[in-house]
Amino acid sequence: MTHAPADADARMSPEALEAAFREVGNTRYHAHHPFHARLHNGELTKGQVQAWALNRYCYQAVIPRKDAALIARTDDAELRRHWRRRLADHDGDHAGDGGLARWLHLIRGLGLDPEIVRAQTLALPGVRFACEAYLRFVAERSLVEAVASSLTELFAPALISDRIAGMLRNYDFVDADTLVYFDARLNEAPRDAEAALSYVIRQAVTREQQDAAIAALSFKCDVLWAILDALDYAYVAPGNIPPGAFDPAASRAQLG
Amino acid sequence: MTHAPADADARMSPEALEAAFREVGNTRYHAHHPFHARLHNGELTKGQVQAWALNRYCYQAVIPRKDAALIARTDDAELRRHWRRRLADHDGDHAGDGGLARWLHLIRGLGLDPEIVRAQTLALPGVRFACEAYLRFVAERSLVEAVASSLTELFAPALISDRIAGMLRNYDFVDADTLVYFDARLNEAPRDAEAALSYVIRQAVTREQQDAAIAALSFKCDVLWAILDALDYAYVAPGNIPPGAFDPAASRAQLG
Repeated sequence: MTHAPADADARMSPEALEAAFREVGNTRYHAHHPFHARLHNGELTKGQVQAWALNRYCYQAVIPRKDAALIARTDDAELRRHWRRRLADHDGDHAGDGGLARWLHLIRGLGLDPEIVRAQTLALPGVRFACEAYLRFVAERSLVEAVASSLTELFAPALISDRIAGMLRNYDFVDADTLVYFDARLNEAPRDAEAALSYVIRQAVTREQQDAAIAALSFKCDVLWAILDALDYAYVAPGNIPPGAFDPAASRAQLG
Repeated sequence: MTHAPADADARMSPEALEAAFREVGNTRYHAHHPFHARLHNGELTKGQVQAWALNRYCYQAVIPRKDAALIARTDDAELRRHWRRRLADHDGDHAGDGGLARWLHLIRGLGLDPEIVRAQTLALPGVRFACEAYLRFVAERSLVEAVASSLTELFAPALISDRIAGMLRNYDFVDADTLVYFDARLNEAPRDAEAALSYVIRQAVTREQQDAAIAALSFKCDVLWAILDALDYAYVAPGNIPPGAFDPAASRAQLG
């Protein structure tokens, strides 16, 4: 691992630990995945963008569950209070409010039936497996690893800004209202990421815990990357859609 | 679902249930995946075959764990005794014996270091997530669904026979000794599949349980398919290997 200093047993300084997290982001965050380049550069058809939104819904759906799983594990009321804001961000205060509802607004804007998407039955198995792995990681690993796995949010704002600009410029079937989910994330992600980073730097007090936190962030990058691998495989070259998954060409019959 | 009769609430006959399982196999079993055609037809390089064996090890490694998880869940001593044969098949009676050791024999025959493969750190995240999903399914779903998820073995012998013949014919770096794992499976799989099929037909006594059993087999096909999706994406076209995963071109440095 390139971040390891000469003495691999020595505790890293807060600055070195943060630098190690940022190095993971530079090399493994899904901003660098070729599918995102295609998405943002306007290389995809509407059906392919639908496939992305439908599958990414599985990830959105798991977020409030993994956040609740984290809250359920700690006696630290401050951490619980802090993390509860994430639940509120995603689930809102009433039906139709919050991030998950805004993702379904995107779904509707792309011409898909939200009920079909919500059922997740047409999602790629590989995407569902990756999202479940994330939920289980947060529920089962140490608390500092669970928090560290959220640190992909450190890298999210740049990606989201590129996405909004690229999709608005390149797709006539997308407008600012369709993409309102991402506007909210531009504010929420930095606030959450700073707090989570501060928590991990305080709580990872041994080199072993620091290495575990770095590995947790790397794992989370693997989850996001695997989601795009599955999308890029199934929906870019022809003939690769797995049996039973969403097929843009057959979507009228499948979704009816 | 094409197997559903006009009266979707009516219990299916044993023959209809078996036919429904076989229909799942005809449409979703990974024998039909394009990666298997490439593997058997000699279209892959040695490095690509190494990538297949290294990643498939994750699946092999999860099999005795999912079998033990199933045994742990039942008070039926007959089922436990029967299922224990699977544990013995995979783990053997001493170090170097059993299916897992035979898979590592294949690994060695392909020129890979068994210790590197056993650590699973170079495996594709998508493959690991799929294997973990299978383990959790068996540990968490109803017993009849857990048993039904093993019914892919009904379809294994034809695939294995094709594999042995194709790989021996098409790859000069493979011989009969390398492939000894598959010889044993040709005997074990039919014996296990018949017993599991008989169990599911006896225990799935409502239409709801029968439908759940069919869905369990379909889920298992999704697991196997997703493993090959990940391999086909990462290792057939250039430029798609995820960060940190096995790279045949760099394997000397990576494996050293």
